Amino acid sequence: MGLRRAIEYARSHRQRFVSELKDFVRFPSVSNQPQHARDVRRCASWLAKHLRSIGLERVRIISTSRHPVVYAAWQHAQGRPTLLIYGHYDVQPPEPLSEWRTPPFEPVVRDNNLYGRGACDDKGQLFTHVKALESYLKTERTLPVNVKCIFEGEEELGGSPGLETFVKKNQSALRADAALMSDTRMLGPGRPALGYAQRGNIRFEVEVRGPRQDLHSGNFGGAVHNPLQALCEIIAGLHDSDGRVTISGFYDKVREWSAEEREYMQKTGPKDADILRDAGVPKEWGETGYSLYERITIRPALTLNGITGGYQGTGIKTVIPARALAKISIRIVPDQNPLEIDKLFRQHIARVAPSTVSVRVRTLAASNPALVNRNHPALRAAAFAYQKGFGATPVFLRSGGSVPAASIFQKTLGIPTVLMGFALPDDQLHAPNEKFHLPNFFRGIETSIWYLAAAAKLGKVGEEAASQKEWRA
Amino acid sequence: MGLRRAIEYARSHRQRFVSELKDFVRFPSVSNQPQHARDVRRCASWLAKHLRSIGLERVRIISTSRHPVVYAAWQHAQGRPTLLIYGHYDVQPPEPLSEWRTPPFEPVVRDNNLYGRGACDDKGQLFTHVKALESYLKTERTLPVNVKCIFEGEEELGGSPGLETFVKKNQSALRADAALMSDTRMLGPGRPALGYAQRGNIRFEVEVRGPRQDLHSGNFGGAVHNPLQALCEIIAGLHDSDGRVTISGFYDKVREWSAEEREYMQKTGPKDADILRDAGVPKEWGETGYSLYERITIRPALTLNGITGGYQGTGIKTVIPARALAKISIRIVPDQNPLEIDKLFRQHIARVAPSTVSVRVRTLAASNPALVNRNHPALRAAAFAYQKGFGATPVFLRSGGSVPAASIFQKTLGIPTVLMGFALPDDQLHAPNEKFHLPNFFRGIETSIWYLAAAAKLGKVGEEAASQKEWRA
Repeated sequence: MGLRRAIEYARSHRQRFVSELKDFVRFPSVSNQPQHARDVRRCASWLAKHLRSIGLERVRIISTSRHPVVYAAWQHAQGRPTLLIYGHYDVQPPEPLSEWRTPPFEPVVRDNNLYGRGACDDKGQLFTHVKALESYLKTERTLPVNVKCIFEGEEELGGSPGLETFVKKNQSALRADAALMSDTRMLGPGRPALGYAQRGNIRFEVEVRGPRQDLHSGNFGGAVHNPLQALCEIIAGLHDSDGRVTISGFYDKVREWSAEEREYMQKTGPKDADILRDAGVPKEWGETGYSLYERITIRPALTLNGITGGYQGTGIKTVIPARALAKISIRIVPDQNPLEIDKLFRQHIARVAPSTVSVRVRTLAASNPALVNRNHPALRAAAFAYQKGFGATPVFLRSGGSVPAASIFQKTLGIPTVLMGFALPDDQLHAPNEKFHLPNFFRGIETSIWYLAAAAKLGKVGEEAASQKEWRA
Repeated sequence: MGLRRAIEYARSHRQRFVSELKDFVRFPSVSNQPQHARDVRRCASWLAKHLRSIGLERVRIISTSRHPVVYAAWQHAQGRPTLLIYGHYDVQPPEPLSEWRTPPFEPVVRDNNLYGRGACDDKGQLFTHVKALESYLKTERTLPVNVKCIFEGEEELGGSPGLETFVKKNQSALRADAALMSDTRMLGPGRPALGYAQRGNIRFEVEVRGPRQDLHSGNFGGAVHNPLQALCEIIAGLHDSDGRVTISGFYDKVREWSAEEREYMQKTGPKDADILRDAGVPKEWGETGYSLYERITIRPALTLNGITGGYQGTGIKTVIPARALAKISIRIVPDQNPLEIDKLFRQHIARVAPSTVSVRVRTLAASNPALVNRNHPALRAAAFAYQKGFGATPVFLRSGGSVPAASIFQKTLGIPTVLMGFALPDDQLHAPNEKFHLPNFFRGIETSIWYLAAAAKLGKVGEEAASQKEWRA
């Protein structure tokens, strides 16, 4: 049977797969830092060449407004379903560099983990599917299903800004029965999880301007409103003492879930203690009345991602800074609408901004939340594949993060997305010392091989759309 | 008469004086940036050599714990008073560099102003006295009074940390009848001012730590207290809605001034509109019940000088930062005590720090406020010199900034300090595009020449101490 031979192939080429993944990680494909634009493009070229080498067809590097999409396909499984495989080859900035034990773009293996920026998010996870396809194609010269791959380079910009346009433009070319991606987390080692819900994300910059330029704080301290202090005051007012966001109307559209769903979450999801341990904090925080797992999945959250203002060097420089800037992101949940929340946020800031300074809000990116029925056949097939690949039944997990692609596929192509997370909670996604646990890489490849086989029995778009509708009702 | 010849000398060497000052400004003697330690020392050597070349004696570079003091003297005016001339050759950091129209350490003259970091604060102002001494010594081979110069390199560290120890150790060597320095501001062009009061300053770092390391804000947002947000909450709580500092006991020791003193201030000091114009802000802020001039001089102030936390690059990085740091300075007034305010600040932070994060306070430096009786003979002599140098009667002005040296001389040597400010309100002290108005440089030199002559008639320490005591009662 072809599947067995594919698995054997995957097992006997593990060392080479790791070595190729290291080559992939070496590109500093940091999409949001303009100085790396060329590296992103070089990474895309490398990936395209690699996809061609394993036997995929129609390989193309397709320009978007900023970073290209790498496309590849294999469409010779007549009468079988089509799978849209998605991943992203761009990575988060590596800063702060001083906290990395080894340089972020010089991948190394330590203790069965591959360390490097993007090792897990998402180059490593993307690569599991590439290696699964290779394992079939190199042994059988065929695949159990039709496949279309889109690997984008703008995910870490926030909201995959070019993807929605790209998918809309190529709606018929990208027609498929389900999407597959790996860009989420497991519950823990040996505890696989299938994502069925992700939060959306809106990203803002809030800028406060005061004096024409930096002032001597001795000469003016006490008479001039400090823009950095004003910014702190605005930010401090964004949450009340119960950890709730104070923006008027913010919770109005937040879906309340049934007792059954919340029980399911309680039974299958991480416990408060797990989340606190993973975060490395002694104490919880946030909205009362919800478990921590609920707070990070079915509840929206407003997070301050950074502040720039005043002197940041050694010692002190006694200034009143002329301006201050905050980076803020809001994670939204069904049935919040990004445009509506954007408007409410701006209204709130306009209302609380003191007249002593001037305040400006910029929206950098926005994405919708995504949601798939847990009982959808594509997810049941994925559960089966996981059972085979990891020897463990996966739980269906909500994620607090955002997968813009999943919401775009749902909205534009009308298909569900299977999210097979292979990341561990301590893989340091977006943080220094990001790693990918190599046993998960290998099991991920086998899970993907099993999934390709199981997907051959998937139904067609019609039924799934109905199932989706039922779920949303 | 010697004074006339000294003035003629000063007038005919203006061009060379400016050229020498440019050499002085070229040293990036940034005392609080370790990478410039060598530049500070090179600047001290240059200054020592220069003092020797103009005829001063006993020139020495005296090591302290960090940056050296440059000492020079001339003590042949038998039976005459001794003047302690103070200044600092270290400068503020030049950041943000992008906002300078010309590089900070490549001084240039534009429109009668010398631009460069330290051009005014304090190299230019220090140099007025050096050039006055030269003008006497090169024409008369003598001075009207005995002179001891101490030019330090740690003023911009905050609180002149090494100066107090240095002065205490050399108390008898530094014995003098009055101190003279220029490190303060005039009211405006042609409107000279004599400083008679400065605020003290305590500088803190407040650090908030949360998770072990930066977290993905999608995965943890809503369940973990963000240290940067916690810091904003702490900072926002430091002032109430009336602009008053909320630290318990903060105002207890603040001296209430008589109606006469406040009337004098109102009559002579800058108006609210002047301060707003100089700051470049449309609207006042701060403690109600006080004019802006009062708020920045006889009232204490707490200023946020900078925040570092989270991602500060282009775009957004969706993290919950592991730590956040604020730089805060508190300007204190008579009769607040730096040690007491330090304690009250720490108690306040400990009380408001939430249990979800850990908060640490570090005190970086502290200095006392300083105060001289406006009717002291040393100040009256200075007013006369100003009248001669600028053709205008100076007002007696309080300053919101801190001159640690003045409080140290008062406390340790028991002598008053004459503060002849030659800086203009728009000279951008501590800010990008710092400048020194060259007409003020030239008039400053002549004022100093007149002062050296007038100081010959000053009384001795005994009387002054009595006068000081009366003022403090």
